[in-house]
Amino acid sequence: METQLQRPPTTDTARRVEALNRNDKAFHVVLAQQFDRTAIEQLCQLADMIRTIGGARPGTQFLRTLLSHRRAMLYFIQPSTRTFLSFTAACQIVGMPYNSVRERSTSSEVKGESEDDTIRVLSQYFDLIIMRHPAEGFAEHVAGILNNMPRTIPVINGGSGRDQHPTQALLDIYTLIRSFGGTADSRVEHRYVRNPFSGKTIAFVGDLKRGRTVRSLAYLLCRYPGPRLIFVSPPELQIGDDILEYLARSGLEYEISHDLRAHIGECDAVYMTRLQDEHDVAGESKSIDYDKYNLTPDMVKHFKPDLAILHPLPRRKEIDQKLDSLPQAKYWAQVRNGMWMRAALIASIFNFDVAIRDHYHAYYTF
Amino acid sequence: METQLQRPPTTDTARRVEALNRNDKAFHVVLAQQFDRTAIEQLCQLADMIRTIGGARPGTQFLRTLLSHRRAMLYFIQPSTRTFLSFTAACQIVGMPYNSVRERSTSSEVKGESEDDTIRVLSQYFDLIIMRHPAEGFAEHVAGILNNMPRTIPVINGGSGRDQHPTQALLDIYTLIRSFGGTADSRVEHRYVRNPFSGKTIAFVGDLKRGRTVRSLAYLLCRYPGPRLIFVSPPELQIGDDILEYLARSGLEYEISHDLRAHIGECDAVYMTRLQDEHDVAGESKSIDYDKYNLTPDMVKHFKPDLAILHPLPRRKEIDQKLDSLPQAKYWAQVRNGMWMRAALIASIFNFDVAIRDHYHAYYTF
Amino acid sequence: METQLQRPPTTDTARRVEALNRNDKAFHVVLAQQFDRTAIEQLCQLADMIRTIGGARPGTQFLRTLLSHRRAMLYFIQPSTRTFLSFTAACQIVGMPYNSVRERSTSSEVKGESEDDTIRVLSQYFDLIIMRHPAEGFAEHVAGILNNMPRTIPVINGGSGRDQHPTQALLDIYTLIRSFGGTADSRVEHRYVRNPFSGKTIAFVGDLKRGRTVRSLAYLLCRYPGPRLIFVSPPELQIGDDILEYLARSGLEYEISHDLRAHIGECDAVYMTRLQDEHDVAGESKSIDYDKYNLTPDMVKHFKPDLAILHPLPRRKEIDQKLDSLPQAKYWAQVRNGMWMRAALIASIFNFDVAIRDHYHAYYTF
Repeated sequence: METQLQRPPTTDTARRVEALNRNDKAFHVVLAQQFDRTAIEQLCQLADMIRTIGGARPGTQFLRTLLSHRRAMLYFIQPSTRTFLSFTAACQIVGMPYNSVRERSTSSEVKGESEDDTIRVLSQYFDLIIMRHPAEGFAEHVAGILNNMPRTIPVINGGSGRDQHPTQALLDIYTLIRSFGGTADSRVEHRYVRNPFSGKTIAFVGDLKRGRTVRSLAYLLCRYPGPRLIFVSPPELQIGDDILEYLARSGLEYEISHDLRAHIGECDAVYMTRLQDEHDVAGESKSIDYDKYNLTPDMVKHFKPDLAILHPLPRRKEIDQKLDSLPQAKYWAQVRNGMWMRAALIASIFNFDVAIRDHYHAYYTF
Repeated sequence: METQLQRPPTTDTARRVEALNRNDKAFHVVLAQQFDRTAIEQLCQLADMIRTIGGARPGTQFLRTLLSHRRAMLYFIQPSTRTFLSFTAACQIVGMPYNSVRERSTSSEVKGESEDDTIRVLSQYFDLIIMRHPAEGFAEHVAGILNNMPRTIPVINGGSGRDQHPTQALLDIYTLIRSFGGTADSRVEHRYVRNPFSGKTIAFVGDLKRGRTVRSLAYLLCRYPGPRLIFVSPPELQIGDDILEYLARSGLEYEISHDLRAHIGECDAVYMTRLQDEHDVAGESKSIDYDKYNLTPDMVKHFKPDLAILHPLPRRKEIDQKLDSLPQAKYWAQVRNGMWMRAALIASIFNFDVAIRDHYHAYYTF
Repeated sequence: METQLQRPPTTDTARRVEALNRNDKAFHVVLAQQFDRTAIEQLCQLADMIRTIGGARPGTQFLRTLLSHRRAMLYFIQPSTRTFLSFTAACQIVGMPYNSVRERSTSSEVKGESEDDTIRVLSQYFDLIIMRHPAEGFAEHVAGILNNMPRTIPVINGGSGRDQHPTQALLDIYTLIRSFGGTADSRVEHRYVRNPFSGKTIAFVGDLKRGRTVRSLAYLLCRYPGPRLIFVSPPELQIGDDILEYLARSGLEYEISHDLRAHIGECDAVYMTRLQDEHDVAGESKSIDYDKYNLTPDMVKHFKPDLAILHPLPRRKEIDQKLDSLPQAKYWAQVRNGMWMRAALIASIFNFDVAIRDHYHAYYTF
């Protein structure tokens, strides 16, 4: 692909994934760390272009021809409506027919097939596997299987285990960049003119220990100098030390806090998350006063006018519904951004980024 | 849309739905009462045109471009194969990609999301929501949510609660009109030359208390002067008084009967329904002799030659299978009519009725 | 269709199916026995052509227009991932929109509808029914129902009961023919120049009693003089006598054996199957030493260089994973062949074989 989605990463996992992609066959999307600043901004620009092109009927028809000759398999063994539908919408935008496997019980695995064989079979029918799976590291494992097949196809990690959710991180940073005034400047390819994160304060709020979206997004923010991060959570649900070390090594300024109200006034963005009590072992989060980590109407008077409120959804009470109609509420736009970003990612993997850029420059800039 | 689908209705619900549609953003299909005679006949003519155009390969290819730039979500929380497949076929005819949510358990709602938020999220990915839901009034509720989003998309009620099923009513009246000799006269737009219901006798047979299809169809028939309705049911399962009052206020002649055999000879159409014993509270319908409300081979000799037998399906024993090959059996055609009618409705909502009419007049009339 | 897919078969079932197809309305694919040598080779050539045409983007776009005016219903009541996905991929290749019914519980049948009525309803929405069903003879039954509808559409048997799986047999024989050097010679239509099975030894290994794929493939191999068949299985799981009689009447040479190791060196193809213990009545296969019927790394030294290893999948331990990378391993290619063969079959049923041949000759031969 034209965009350079690789960059020397540092963790062991990242090193292994880099090795997996060191072939000419397929580009696997496994980790957020795979994407450096150039890659992120190319994808954001491409998403912006697809959004613009897709805003009128002739443009949608151009987009729908792009990948009409390929087929995607959505292997979503872990329940997910939102991410699943986002990917299907992305496939539909770039015209890629898809099919899905949603649970193992309907599959041949009841007859004793290994999941590895299932992946091998799927790779015969489809040209891309988009997967979501409860097992940690499953996407990496799939990439390894696919690399060993005579016909290698790419895999996109739509969430595996509790660790990584790279496409969520891409749509989150895309939403932040759009909120902070980053736009696709068609004359400056591959890099925004200015750093959209320079001088910005971003708070992450809630269950930071068990939410993979915050972890993945943190990896991406390390590609940028400038942002100051505040991790606001109950003491029991603090962000992992591995992430804090990664931030420190990357030179990013951060702060740990347990008091949302104390910080809300200084935030340029606030990333809300829900309590992930389905991961409780013995109901330990029942004793936590999570209400302190909710955005409520009485806080609105402290909001900066340009504050961007994000939430990976689903929400419970973290954001009062009365806030939905505020200009600061970006969480519905964030959902829609995910669709455009995933369309951009799929198009890039199959090297159609160039065709989209060319179309955009020919028809939408003068 | 070009067609005027609104007309001052009279019930409180209808008044609320009319208010919901009083915007320039989206036309929501919630109730049968929304459709006046002009709207009904425009949709019937459009369905006829789509059927004709779709009868050969070049025509299908024209139709499939119409809505290829939009995407539909079929949110079918209540089990339904027939209506679901009918809508998917309709989407495919007008080239609209779709996706579906069929049960709440696979959705993010297990994580504590409100159904309102689910609708809000779906509205970010899709351009139309077609829904079926067990809750009374849910379609109206969804229309309200969608009107409050920055990007408003339309909703079509594919059946909600026990009350309303407007697209079934539209396909039923379409089938009656076709059976009674109504055809799309391309030279007379917006209105059939003659009233197809003038002097016709239509019997509704069976469980009229709990079948929402009969209720919805009754609302539509009130748009026409002329038909005489006979409600034939066990005394325990009579049609609701609210419907009878609505008919009376509309000036329609009707009769209540418990004897199918006494009336079958005078019918121009007979609308059979099955016993809805899944709504029994304490097995109360077990004591009913429902067999008296079945069409049996020995009745055939009393049939008018032009009798139209309809059934919303599924059937149990209401119509003996030996009757399937009679010219009077219209229930399979009725199924197929539903597909054409739903395609017409979707096309109309997105203002493609004009394009279809233009195409029809250009290629299919001389 | 141009290809002559019928030939006087001999069994009672085959005679009945032949009668079902003796109409001008639709060609039903019910049994492997329906296909004579000419039909098999025409389909193989067509599959080869579709594979070639589908190998580049312009070709895929030609293919995707072929059946864009029709719609398929995949009525897959019996769990199946592999066959289901193969058919959906085939539909996508020839551009045929499809929908599916995967279980009876989501259907109207909970309301008391007969399965016959379900089929009748589906025939109103779709132009082709592809079905998989636990009941013996169900495909034949469906063909009968469809022939009695005013609008008759074809049915394809995707596996019914324990007896027949004709499209698996077609993809198996296609894989054998490709392995044995049969190729589509564009100058010799309708028949390969030489008999690919002449002098070939083919072993069937494993649970031959309960595997329908072996039975169906045996019927097809009887269309060819020349192959020698070895049925290698535990004594308890021998191939049915009816098949052996059919082979004998067809003049095919065969041998019964219980010793894989004794024969592996003489095989040109070996067709592995798994133990179908889900059909056990009282765990009777627990006492069988099935490991003797596995292909293991120590056997590789006996393999002929051109040996073709097939497996209908899913596999358990019948083929050691270490063999996957051998040139003799054809089971992944076999999966992909199924997709091309099913696309060829669907195209043929709707008479688009001619259009594909014409396109192939115009663009891919000089």
